[in-house]
Amino acid sequence: MKKIESLSLLTDLYQLTMSYAYFKNNMHNKTAVFNLFYRKNPFNGNYAISCGLRSAIDYIQNFKFIKSDIDYLRTLTGNDNKALFSEDFLEYLSQLKFEGDIDGVEEGRIVFPHEPMLRIKAPIILGQLLETPLLNIMNFQTLIATKTNRVCLAAQGDTVLEFGLRRAQGVDGAISATYASMIGGAHATSNVLAGKLFGMDVKGTHAHSWVMSFDQELDAFNAYADSLPNNCIFLVDTYNTKQGVTNAIEVAKSLREEGHEVLGIRLDSGDMAKLSIMAREMLDKAGFEGAKIVASNDLDEYRIHELKSKGAKIDVWGVGTKLVTAYDQPALGGVYKLAAIKEDDSWVYKVKKSEELIKVSNPGILNIKRYLKDGKYSLDVMINEEEQASDRCVDMTNENLTALDEQERFELLLVPIFREGKYIYKQPTIEESIAKKDKDFNLLPDHLKGFSSSEPYPVCLDENLHKLKKKLLDNI
Amino acid sequence: MKKIESLSLLTDLYQLTMSYAYFKNNMHNKTAVFNLFYRKNPFNGNYAISCGLRSAIDYIQNFKFIKSDIDYLRTLTGNDNKALFSEDFLEYLSQLKFEGDIDGVEEGRIVFPHEPMLRIKAPIILGQLLETPLLNIMNFQTLIATKTNRVCLAAQGDTVLEFGLRRAQGVDGAISATYASMIGGAHATSNVLAGKLFGMDVKGTHAHSWVMSFDQELDAFNAYADSLPNNCIFLVDTYNTKQGVTNAIEVAKSLREEGHEVLGIRLDSGDMAKLSIMAREMLDKAGFEGAKIVASNDLDEYRIHELKSKGAKIDVWGVGTKLVTAYDQPALGGVYKLAAIKEDDSWVYKVKKSEELIKVSNPGILNIKRYLKDGKYSLDVMINEEEQASDRCVDMTNENLTALDEQERFELLLVPIFREGKYIYKQPTIEESIAKKDKDFNLLPDHLKGFSSSEPYPVCLDENLHKLKKKLLDNI
Repeated sequence: MKKIESLSLLTDLYQLTMSYAYFKNNMHNKTAVFNLFYRKNPFNGNYAISCGLRSAIDYIQNFKFIKSDIDYLRTLTGNDNKALFSEDFLEYLSQLKFEGDIDGVEEGRIVFPHEPMLRIKAPIILGQLLETPLLNIMNFQTLIATKTNRVCLAAQGDTVLEFGLRRAQGVDGAISATYASMIGGAHATSNVLAGKLFGMDVKGTHAHSWVMSFDQELDAFNAYADSLPNNCIFLVDTYNTKQGVTNAIEVAKSLREEGHEVLGIRLDSGDMAKLSIMAREMLDKAGFEGAKIVASNDLDEYRIHELKSKGAKIDVWGVGTKLVTAYDQPALGGVYKLAAIKEDDSWVYKVKKSEELIKVSNPGILNIKRYLKDGKYSLDVMINEEEQASDRCVDMTNENLTALDEQERFELLLVPIFREGKYIYKQPTIEESIAKKDKDFNLLPDHLKGFSSSEPYPVCLDENLHKLKKKLLDNI
Repeated sequence: MKKIESLSLLTDLYQLTMSYAYFKNNMHNKTAVFNLFYRKNPFNGNYAISCGLRSAIDYIQNFKFIKSDIDYLRTLTGNDNKALFSEDFLEYLSQLKFEGDIDGVEEGRIVFPHEPMLRIKAPIILGQLLETPLLNIMNFQTLIATKTNRVCLAAQGDTVLEFGLRRAQGVDGAISATYASMIGGAHATSNVLAGKLFGMDVKGTHAHSWVMSFDQELDAFNAYADSLPNNCIFLVDTYNTKQGVTNAIEVAKSLREEGHEVLGIRLDSGDMAKLSIMAREMLDKAGFEGAKIVASNDLDEYRIHELKSKGAKIDVWGVGTKLVTAYDQPALGGVYKLAAIKEDDSWVYKVKKSEELIKVSNPGILNIKRYLKDGKYSLDVMINEEEQASDRCVDMTNENLTALDEQERFELLLVPIFREGKYIYKQPTIEESIAKKDKDFNLLPDHLKGFSSSEPYPVCLDENLHKLKKKLLDNI
């Protein structure tokens, strides 16, 4: 397989054919505004954790068609067997780099349906070419960060480990899932490469194959402990869990005599509520109150909640397949919609009409005012930055009018990332992004923190923006 | 984010801690055999299309811990804050490359539960280190190739386009999904990078945003046709589908006057059975019998089947999210199990016991004899290549005994890929892999070609192998 040297062709062909048509019609430099957002909260929940900005910035900074990209595009033909693209366009592409403004919701922030996570104001050709890769990045990472947040919520403060590498959707499906799980709240991962790349803690001890490579389980535990006395979690279910715990305790005692403490045991099959209660008793009785019980095997937020409600004595949750693939909803369904085009120095606003109300897009150069009241987020109002805002807003779900108190505290959710192509954002460290997530989650009204949908968080349109939208829809 | 220069750390930490423990116990060079297989057909179907071998070979050929990998591993510590790994081990790792034998099922071949898709015979340390990346690659690509095969089956020979890039699970989730969709039967993709990398046909024309960037839909179609007269598929549902088709026909007429033919139209919303019938009539009446009707919007095999059964006049199916994420079952669940270890020049066979019968692994240095009878595959028999085979076999599902006729034609499914670390396989071209898939699918008994499970294809264990397995289980 060829080595991937450039990701600039990581886009749908129609972005390139449209770009070509913009170019041929001399429209390519018109300034356009696109918003990237999702329409429906994932997992039937009440919010999402925005994630992907870091990768999106990387992508945009490295966006450049290299010679082999151009050479490939030159080979494409239409139904007359003639080239799709002219040489002047290919020459133009080879010089193209991002020039425009991007505003984004910071990594780890809580977002709601219809709120732009990215806003791209750029020559329409660039806005179009970036649509597909930005959706790919933001859709997946937001999905996984949100899933992880739910898993952590179920774990009620227990340690959550991301164990999904072997079942993830491809190499980068794994790497970006691990990154997003970190933003979402996972404490460590099994994925060593993610440790190297992101500084995430990595965890792991041994598998069934280690035990099976010895005649006796006890020999296997002892041999492991001899080699890694400072990293002992014994997997106890290869043959019989009770015997496995007994063997683990025996080795833990030897370890202690040599000045080491066992970290714990891992359960990977069977009735994990019952087995963990049994194992806890055995460990405590033997004087290993500090030994942790790790569980793995098809866990997700629902299973963890169920095990907790059965009194399982599990301290650490290894969550794999169902986390990194977002098994019950493996795609977010985020979209990227044209919201305005500048014609002769003034904005022409755009909406995408649809029979389904939820699919109607919002016009404008949007930002989001998030209001804080009594220590909790109370209201998000989408405004059009280019027009005067009203002192009232209209709820997107129920069309209720709310009067806005000028005294109320709010912050703007979208922050400047690029200006005229220049990267001007001071990127937080990963730890700071996690802290932003923690802070936002604390400020989220508690009734939204369940696993299924409740009374939605109010997301409104500024009343003037709402009027603009109605007018545009009426005109279609 | 750091640039990824090496994928050798794309593994679970426990593979490295076990490797270290093998090394410290001087067991690391023992020859071990691992089999990679899945246990349950995906999507409640009757088979899978094996895919991933090409990427797996790539991975193994590039497998080498680079200096920054070693430097990272040196930083890892245990619960005494001392290093996990000793310097002699890190030095050993830095010299490590694959040496061993790998046999694999060729890309595109049909496989069934419990059949090894890869068999790794190598020093146990290498077998262990490769487990996670090989599972990551084979699990996902096999899943997507199989999903695509089902979509193509529903499309009954119509063209299937892979459109999933924006919703795929990460960058490589998209690239490897597109590759696997090609092996599974997709005719083209929207993913331009996949076109460049794999020579796959790329397709695309324009989106709603193109239409929205003009005042009138007709202007948008005309401007597009002026620029790309040889690549015209008009998306007709931005405002009103009937008016959209009327506009498309008008532009198609102008195109024809200039010596070009419209390729067709695309429907992306609404009642696509009804709309496609209407559009077909309108196009035919206007003299555009050759114009294709393309459909997109949340398609999968079930939806295509439903639309077909409603008489939809759709020629080309653009399948996105549900294909590239395998939406209804986003992970295959393949596993990698130790099957034998060489001790003093003789094999010690291994099984993994489990309370669930389906989770019990098979011992041995396995290959698969696939029998052909009356022009269809009739029986797969797993044999242990290192032992004498019996003339009978035992069905894995129902334990029925079958006598094998020596005269029957069979082939061996696993073929040599690496021998003593040397790559000895003559890799088919992608086109040849697709041809293998087509051939296999033709030879598959017809009752297995439905969307849901039927009487399973018989996969047996050679009787001697079955006896060995029973003995091993009894001994545990």
